[in-house]
Amino acid sequence: MTGLLGMGMAGTVGAVNGLLDLFAEAEELTAALVDIESVSGAEQRLAAEIESALSPLPHLTVQTDGATVIARTELGRPERVILAGHIDTVPVAGNLPSRTERGRLLGCGSTDMKSGVAVQLRLAASLTSPVRDVTYVFYDCEEIEAERNGLGRISREQPELLAGDFAVLLEPTGGVVEGGCQGTLRAEVTAAGERAHSARAWMGRNAIHEAAEILDVLRAYQPRTPEVDGLTYREGLNAVAISGGIAGNVIPDRCTVTVNFRFAPDRSTGQAGEHVREVFGRWPVTVLDAAPGARPGMGEPAAASFVAAVTGEGAAGAGAPRAKLGWTDVARFAEIGIPAVNYGPGEPEVAHASNEYVEIAKIADCEARLRAWLTA
Amino acid sequence: MTGLLGMGMAGTVGAVNGLLDLFAEAEELTAALVDIESVSGAEQRLAAEIESALSPLPHLTVQTDGATVIARTELGRPERVILAGHIDTVPVAGNLPSRTERGRLLGCGSTDMKSGVAVQLRLAASLTSPVRDVTYVFYDCEEIEAERNGLGRISREQPELLAGDFAVLLEPTGGVVEGGCQGTLRAEVTAAGERAHSARAWMGRNAIHEAAEILDVLRAYQPRTPEVDGLTYREGLNAVAISGGIAGNVIPDRCTVTVNFRFAPDRSTGQAGEHVREVFGRWPVTVLDAAPGARPGMGEPAAASFVAAVTGEGAAGAGAPRAKLGWTDVARFAEIGIPAVNYGPGEPEVAHASNEYVEIAKIADCEARLRAWLTA
Repeated sequence: MTGLLGMGMAGTVGAVNGLLDLFAEAEELTAALVDIESVSGAEQRLAAEIESALSPLPHLTVQTDGATVIARTELGRPERVILAGHIDTVPVAGNLPSRTERGRLLGCGSTDMKSGVAVQLRLAASLTSPVRDVTYVFYDCEEIEAERNGLGRISREQPELLAGDFAVLLEPTGGVVEGGCQGTLRAEVTAAGERAHSARAWMGRNAIHEAAEILDVLRAYQPRTPEVDGLTYREGLNAVAISGGIAGNVIPDRCTVTVNFRFAPDRSTGQAGEHVREVFGRWPVTVLDAAPGARPGMGEPAAASFVAAVTGEGAAGAGAPRAKLGWTDVARFAEIGIPAVNYGPGEPEVAHASNEYVEIAKIADCEARLRAWLTA
Repeated sequence: MTGLLGMGMAGTVGAVNGLLDLFAEAEELTAALVDIESVSGAEQRLAAEIESALSPLPHLTVQTDGATVIARTELGRPERVILAGHIDTVPVAGNLPSRTERGRLLGCGSTDMKSGVAVQLRLAASLTSPVRDVTYVFYDCEEIEAERNGLGRISREQPELLAGDFAVLLEPTGGVVEGGCQGTLRAEVTAAGERAHSARAWMGRNAIHEAAEILDVLRAYQPRTPEVDGLTYREGLNAVAISGGIAGNVIPDRCTVTVNFRFAPDRSTGQAGEHVREVFGRWPVTVLDAAPGARPGMGEPAAASFVAAVTGEGAAGAGAPRAKLGWTDVARFAEIGIPAVNYGPGEPEVAHASNEYVEIAKIADCEARLRAWLTA
């Protein structure tokens, strides 16, 4: 583990210019983060700026790994919580530098998720004595293929750096707590038949016609909507691909339906696979890949106080927690036993869009709620 | 139109050696034809031998086109019939040279269809004064892509060479008359949907699930078995391919089923397309390609006397005519207005197999029946 500056990174990714003033207004800090371009795979300069801004702070221990920066308080508190955010963005789409317009900050990464990173940085800089120890994780390569994901790398190689009781990912949720995430599994279900010349179809058995019964099972499938740790999930089982056919004059003997099962976090990947096998009991099922879901952990003390803090009566605008249906990096925390939620100031609807923006007021609101949680 | 010899083909495809004795026994002549290798596209040597054997016969006019040889009587008879056969074979599969075993002649092309070609050649050589004028067609490239088919080339470029009242293709039918052929049409039927993330499938509409209804239509389809010119055909409508899917996490908005309609020769290709559009009325249908069928023409005088001759009481072993269900080159005759049947000595079941063989007795039997028809 070597500091980014110590690695001589400045020579290749540009010198650190001290662009980040962690005590500036949230809007100003967010704009500064947006203006340091950091498309996935090219986050070194921003990571170096973050390390450079955090390192002088005496209440933090700062470490780096590649373009990931981790800062920790070491106050010996009985609880440790993690505030995590990715510093990369999707490719720039003519939306840099940032600009403000009617209460909004526009620019690449403004909602997903440099406004969340700004909240992390302002809390890291100013919370010298939080009631819970805090680990701030700023990681790379979230927007691209899973194997390059910085949080995944740390959880595989140095899970101790992520140790804690509860984690908050500051992904754009519009200020709503989105708990846990659903798992996902892909499997192939194969219908078999007997090949024949299509001029004498009755001498064979058409696997594509047989596959209609697989699709009938999918159409009749009644997904569960289970409640897990107080949040309601919504499962789904769907065909995402189908293929069959040998030649224009041949009755095919094989047709494969690829299904995607999105499952609530009360099932393991193994249980999800078992379920898919049961549903398609008449046909061979091959599981292609699976990623576990994550329980929201709303029963944990840290989570309960978090939810109370961010949805409390005094804090207008924050909705009741809801289940996260898509797969997110909270599952990486779940895999190492840490309940996690998504909660951030950005607008999820405009993530990855060229007109991406964040409501400026929501940045300070999010920060205030998290500050309340960490100081109450 | 130039003679193969005049084209100097001997230089490129080997000298003509006079290997074919058209007055030898049918078995011997078939063996000689089998032993002159003539895989599709490499028939020049065999074509040159055929031309060389036929040209000296004063009762025939012999012409060539590429590796196709056409010999005609010009007796001014009121009827003209065509005896046609392809001289190419599928690739050799360790089954050359020919050999005999328990009344069978084995070897590449023995059944499909050099035994039929032997019958054509023996009739051409010996029938100096048939009661019907006869056109003998020996053509190339039947076993490969349709556009290279020699009979197709002649029918497009010089249909007058194929003029006549009735045609017999000496393809392997085991000595049974197979009349006409069914047409074939391929079409794409497309189910549409709405794309969505598979974690929120209910926000979209799954085109693959929708395609189940297309397959249900196929499964419920009741094909006709119409009688045409006294023969019973059997139609069929089948999926021959299906494809859909965008990515493992996307609800697809498009799924395409490719169907193959095999239709009796009482429908035109246009009517067949109309029928498919009606059957799949709820979905867009795109016709990809179509080939017309061929009526058996059993009502034609030449056909009636042909059937009487080859299935007469005195001729044991020949079964009643049956409908040809697969598409064959008889459709090329139908396209230029000539009714045609398949009738040959080979065994259809072993065509294209490495253990291909012909029952030797059937060669002479087929020849005798055709001779009776052409001399009675």
